[in-house]
Formats: sequence, C-alpha cells, structure tokens
Amino acid sequence: MRMVDLIARKRDGKELTTEEINFFIQGYTKGDIPDYQVSALAMAIFFQDMNDRERADLTMAMVHSGETIDLSGIEGVKVDKHSTGGVGDTTTLVLAPLVAALDIPVAKMSGRGLGHTGGTIDKLESIQGFDVEITKEQFLHLVNEHKIAVIGQTGNLTPADKKLYALRDVTGTVNSIPLIASSIMSKKIAAGSDAIVLDVKTGAGAFMKTTEDAKELAHAMVSIGNNVGRKTMAVISDMSQPLGEAIGNALEVQEAIDTLRGKGPKDLEELCLALGRQMVFLAGKASSLEEAEEKLKEVIANGKALEKFKEFIANQGGDPSVVDHPEKLPQAKFKIELPARKSGKVAELVADEIGTAAMLLGAGRATKESQIDLAVGLMLNKKIGDAVEPGESLVTIYANRENVDDVIQKLYESIVIADDAVAPVLVHDIVTE
Amino acid sequence: MRMVDLIARKRDGKELTTEEINFFIQGYTKGDIPDYQVSALAMAIFFQDMNDRERADLTMAMVHSGETIDLSGIEGVKVDKHSTGGVGDTTTLVLAPLVAALDIPVAKMSGRGLGHTGGTIDKLESIQGFDVEITKEQFLHLVNEHKIAVIGQTGNLTPADKKLYALRDVTGTVNSIPLIASSIMSKKIAAGSDAIVLDVKTGAGAFMKTTEDAKELAHAMVSIGNNVGRKTMAVISDMSQPLGEAIGNALEVQEAIDTLRGKGPKDLEELCLALGRQMVFLAGKASSLEEAEEKLKEVIANGKALEKFKEFIANQGGDPSVVDHPEKLPQAKFKIELPARKSGKVAELVADEIGTAAMLLGAGRATKESQIDLAVGLMLNKKIGDAVEPGESLVTIYANRENVDDVIQKLYESIVIADDAVAPVLVHDIVTE
Repeated sequence: MRMVDLIARKRDGKELTTEEINFFIQGYTKGDIPDYQVSALAMAIFFQDMNDRERADLTMAMVHSGETIDLSGIEGVKVDKHSTGGVGDTTTLVLAPLVAALDIPVAKMSGRGLGHTGGTIDKLESIQGFDVEITKEQFLHLVNEHKIAVIGQTGNLTPADKKLYALRDVTGTVNSIPLIASSIMSKKIAAGSDAIVLDVKTGAGAFMKTTEDAKELAHAMVSIGNNVGRKTMAVISDMSQPLGEAIGNALEVQEAIDTLRGKGPKDLEELCLALGRQMVFLAGKASSLEEAEEKLKEVIANGKALEKFKEFIANQGGDPSVVDHPEKLPQAKFKIELPARKSGKVAELVADEIGTAAMLLGAGRATKESQIDLAVGLMLNKKIGDAVEPGESLVTIYANRENVDDVIQKLYESIVIADDAVAPVLVHDIVTE
Repeated sequence: MRMVDLIARKRDGKELTTEEINFFIQGYTKGDIPDYQVSALAMAIFFQDMNDRERADLTMAMVHSGETIDLSGIEGVKVDKHSTGGVGDTTTLVLAPLVAALDIPVAKMSGRGLGHTGGTIDKLESIQGFDVEITKEQFLHLVNEHKIAVIGQTGNLTPADKKLYALRDVTGTVNSIPLIASSIMSKKIAAGSDAIVLDVKTGAGAFMKTTEDAKELAHAMVSIGNNVGRKTMAVISDMSQPLGEAIGNALEVQEAIDTLRGKGPKDLEELCLALGRQMVFLAGKASSLEEAEEKLKEVIANGKALEKFKEFIANQGGDPSVVDHPEKLPQAKFKIELPARKSGKVAELVADEIGTAAMLLGAGRATKESQIDLAVGLMLNKKIGDAVEPGESLVTIYANRENVDDVIQKLYESIVIADDAVAPVLVHDIVTE
C-alpha cells in the first residue's frame, strides 16, 4: 500500500477502505508517512469529503492511535458532553452536578486549554483547595461512590488527532466537516464514555458561522457516534452572543452555583436543560426527553443538585462553603461599569470580541505559558434585545488593574445599540441521527 | 504574508496575486516554506485551477528561482522544441540538423534522463567520438558558426520546479494542467530560447490519454509562452503507438539519418515536418507555414539537411562517416524476429509497454544508475493498420543476450491483431493560441 495512491484515490472522489484509513493513521502516528503527504490528503478530503463509513473508520483509527480510558469499572451508563467552543460557556460546571444528582455517573476528564477564559479545571481551581491531580483509582472510586469526579488530562490520548490537527492548522484544512467531526469524536470516544451529548454552537462567536453548517457538523458527529456504538445526540445552540452573563473563571463558578439554585440566567438554564435532558435520556434514566427534563427541574427545585455540587467540591479537597459564601471565591480589586452612551436596544454583543476583552484582563490564556487570573472577567448586564438608557451599565468589568482603557475600547467596539432588536433563539435544533 | 492564508485563498477559489506567487516560490526554494504547506497548495490548485495570469506568474517565478541561460550572443531567433514524453521519438535528432540547414540557430541543451530509451545525448553518443562536454564558449561559437550544437545540461536551472515536481510526484498532484504547463514552460524559458514549439502527445503511450486533455495542456503552455513574450505554438500528435519504427539509441540515430535522406518512416517524417514548419515560421524564415514546409522539403531533397548532420557530428568530435556507413554504429549481437501467430491487421501496439520491452533489453535507464546499451532495441516491422500473415515478423529484436523470452512475452502482450484496423491520425491538431 502506498500513501500516494490513497491521495490520488481520494482526490478522484473514490472511497478509502478501512485498511487504507488505518494504514494512513498508523503510518502518520509512527512517523512513517510524512506531513507533506498527509496535508495533500487532508486537502483532497476537504474537496471530496468522506462518507459515513470512512468518517467512522477515521475516528476509530485515531482512537486506536494511542491510549484509551477504560471506564468499565464504573457502574451505569457514562454520558459525556462536549461543546464546540463558545464564550462564557458555563454549561459543564452546571451539568456535571446536575445529572450526577440523578445518579448518572459523571467521569470527567478535562483540560486547561487556550481561550477567552480557562478550561473547566481552571474554573474549578477558583475554589480553594480543589484538586484535580488525583490518581486514576481515586477517580474511579469517587465516581462509583458519589457519581461525580473530575481529573486532569492523563495518558497519551489520540496522538494521531493531535498531530493531524496541528498540521491542518497550518495548511488551510481545518474547515472540513469529516476532519472536524472525527477529531472531536475520537477524543470523546478515547475518553471512554458510553454515550455523548454534543452542543454545537452557531453564530458570530462560533466556529460554525451559520446554522446550516452547524447542523451539518452535528449530523456528522451524531452519525459517527451511532456508527461506532456510542449513542450520540446534539443540540444546535446560539453563540451570536456570550451564553449567560459571566465571562471569567470565578465569575462563572458563581454563575453555575446560581443556576444550580434555579436563579441563574435564563439562557444558561435553558441550554443546560436542553443538554441535560439528552444526557438523562441517553443514560436510561428517563423514557422520554420530557420526563428527563422534569427530573432535572426537580433536583434543582429540591436542592439536590446544589447539594451534589458541594459534595463534589468536598470530595476533591475543596471548600464547599463557597457555595453559600461566594465572597470566598477570588475577588477582583476593581469593579468598573461600562455605561451605555445612547438609548435603544442592544443589537449586537459580538461573542468572540467580548471573549477577547476578558482575555485582555487575564481571564484566559493567549499562549500555553500565560498565567490566568481567576478573579477577573466580565458580567454582562444587558443581552441582545434588552432596552438601555444612556448611563446605564452594559457590562461590569472585574479587573486587577486600575486602567482598563483597552478593555473598555474593545467592549464598546463589540456592543451595538440600535433602535430595535430582539433576543435570538437559543436552541436552534436538536439532532438525533 | 502567511503561506496558510495563500492556501486558504486558493482553496476557496480565489486568485493569487503576483506577489503571493513570488512569495510562495521564493520561500519554497529557500526552504522557508515547508513541503507540507506546498503540497496542500498544490492540491488546492488541482481542484481550483489557476487563470492565465497566475500560470504565467508561476512560470516566471520558477524561471527566476535559479540560473537562466543567456543565448543573446547567438544571432537570429533561437527556437526550441519540446515533446511531452512518448516512445521511440526521434524528432529531435531529425529536427536539429533539418532546421539548422535553413540557417536557424539550434542551441540545444539536453539531458540523459530516465525512460524507455536514452535521452538525445545518449543517442548522439552512439556515434563514435561525439562529445557533448564542451564549454559554453565553444557551444555559442559553434551555434554562431554552424547554426547547430548540443551541450549537456549545465547550471542550476529552475530549482523551484525540481523541488516542486519531486513533491508533486509523491502527493498525487502531478496531474494538474497549470502545474504541468508551468513546469515545462519554466524549463524551456530558463534555457533561453526566443520561441518554443511544443509536441504534445496523446493516446495510450502518452501522459495525456485523451486528445481533449492534450489540447487543454497545449493551450495552457502556448498561452503561458505568449503571455511572457516567447512566441509559442503546439502540435497535438498521436502516441497510441510508437513513432517511427526504431526504439533504441543507435537504431534511432540510423532512423534519423534515413529520415534526413527522405527515406524514413512516413509518420516520423510527417511529424518532423509539422513541428519543423512551426519552428521555421517562428524563426521568421518563412511567411507562412506552407512556405516553411516547402523549404524543409527542399533541404531534405537537395541533401543539405544530411550534410548539416555530418557537419554537426564532425564539429563535436564525432565520426561523420557513420552517416554513409551505418555499420559503424554499435551493433547488437543477436537479431531475433517476433513472428505473428495469426493473420489479420495490427490493431494495437501499446506504446509504453513496447517501450518497456526495449528497456528490458537495456535500451533505457530504469534508475539513474542504470547503464545503457546503445546497440540494443526494437524495430517495428508492422504498425497499426498493417496486414499480417502468420509467421511474418512483427518486430525485430536487437539484443546482446541470447535468451529474450521476457521481451518476447512483453511484446506479444502489447501487440493485438484483429480482423480489421486502420492507422490512427498522426497530427490531431495545431494550437497557436
């Protein structure tokens, strides 16, 4: 088998066999197949696509390129959730204790990552004492006993995906549905869950700018999951503005606590319920999505969800009293209001630009070496469709430096006030096949 | 300027600017731009093509990537000829003295190359004493005095093309019209000629399998030449069977001599006149193609073309008496006839397979290190459309080994005799713009 023949076949619109896809991924992982052949193949895939069978094969070849996590020691159906980017996305912090409160095992492996704010681990580390550096044995034990634990990324998962993604990034081949879908799904599958719920963002702040593109990606991922024996569903959700109100690590922990108490922002609650009901349904804890949603609302109302969050914090060495005493979370030195300069309705809140403003404050990492400031961030006081009067605060800036002119300028550029505007639909679609 | 942005622009069907094309070729030649980005761009070009301006820019960027030959010291219009592959192609050996006999300067730089038979230099070295290792001063002097000289390849011409071609060969991006056309034209332009005549082969033995593809390539090259100020014309010629009768180095020299005497195979003569009249016309030695052809026929009839060949041989240290005493050319030890096994008409003579049979005898190089045997080869006694009776010789095998069963088997596999068949049209089209 020769790589050049595989490239030519895909270039000419032919299907690659399972053996050919394994040959390519194994050879690339080992270093036998050079980058220049793989980038040519990736570009051919960009133009000629892959069918469902090829996408599933590519995903599983990447899964088998490295270690996989064995969660079989955990009882019950393990459901994982994945969001495709987004700004101010607090859903993981809410959903983990929320579904664990319904006895669904949440075995979360998470990273720090780059971006506007930190990863889930960074956010949890806003809570004093919280430790994700636990052993695998502790991790499995906690999930079996308490249905919830988070561990930092461990092991050499999907090295083929890591290598391929880095190559795609510099060769104009990122934006290909089969390559994006197999990349995401290989990581989720290697992480060992039985079922997967996907939150595919669409809009100005998302990778997929149109709902059509987001649906195509969602269908691709759901199809891969179901074809390789992992029950998968997806929600297409709006990211034309940041989700919720908080953007920043400690601020998002506070927002998650509010939401678990039933007092969070409406859009965040709505999306958590939309994703959560799919998780509950796939875990076999409800016979319909409606029933699943009822159960979620119940554990919010009766305080079990919040109780599970406290238990989770305590299990991993954190101080659970932050839940009732949010002043124990890291606090920024300065709170600066951003006043509206005209009256009207908020028409645009460009999500990724606002995320960049938060990163300027230190809430996220621009490079791997950057230090995160857990206390800083933004609180959005107005969302799209909200009426404002001149002088009213649009955003509260939480900063550890006095001069935030750069952030203020960035925010004014990202917020458009017009005569009229309406709130966007949050959940565009549900994809189940 | 970032290479990844160029790749994305071409991927999305956009035009690359002159500056972008120069950036890419200069960066690649210097090693600043890695293979993996160039192969991705090549694949994007395969799918999105390049317009005439981009193709001309790419060609000239490759010309300027290395040295160029300065032929300005030679008086008159220097016309070069290039054939795109083919088997048993003796046209260069015939055309060089033929047009030189009309006072058109032929300053030929030639290589050894790989293939079914040797390159022009190998063929000429069948003549005892013939030397292509002359200095550049001798070369220019000979062309000015005698209108004809051949020199071995010298200097670092079009290094970008060499690097790009080697990469395309292993990344499934050879078969792209803008990349093929710019590769060929860059080499011809760097070699310094004022005008270029192209012989684009089509059919089973050629790189372009259909006449349509061959025409597209011819148009692309003619357009590049004319856009960069080199008058260019092309002939689309048939390569569904080998040209002429001889395949092998000394055998082709003999065939060239016969053709210069007006006694060569009809198809070889026809193609030499079709290409030669374009060369004469572009050199400004005739005001129409018809007049040009008359002049060529005249120098064949009056012996001046053959005389020029002798002069050429003598100038470069060779023994011109081979022209009248072909027995002085290297002779093979064995002549083996290949008898027809049934009656009918020759319907197929698969050109590249027959070329491979000649290579098995030692007539060509399989790898750069292979030694060529100048004496061996094949003489085709029958061509497509000829009637044969059982036992009649189809091919005479000239070998230096007694057992040629492998060659015989290859030849029988390549020659189809059917109830009826007609000779193919040789010159399919003339492309002048």
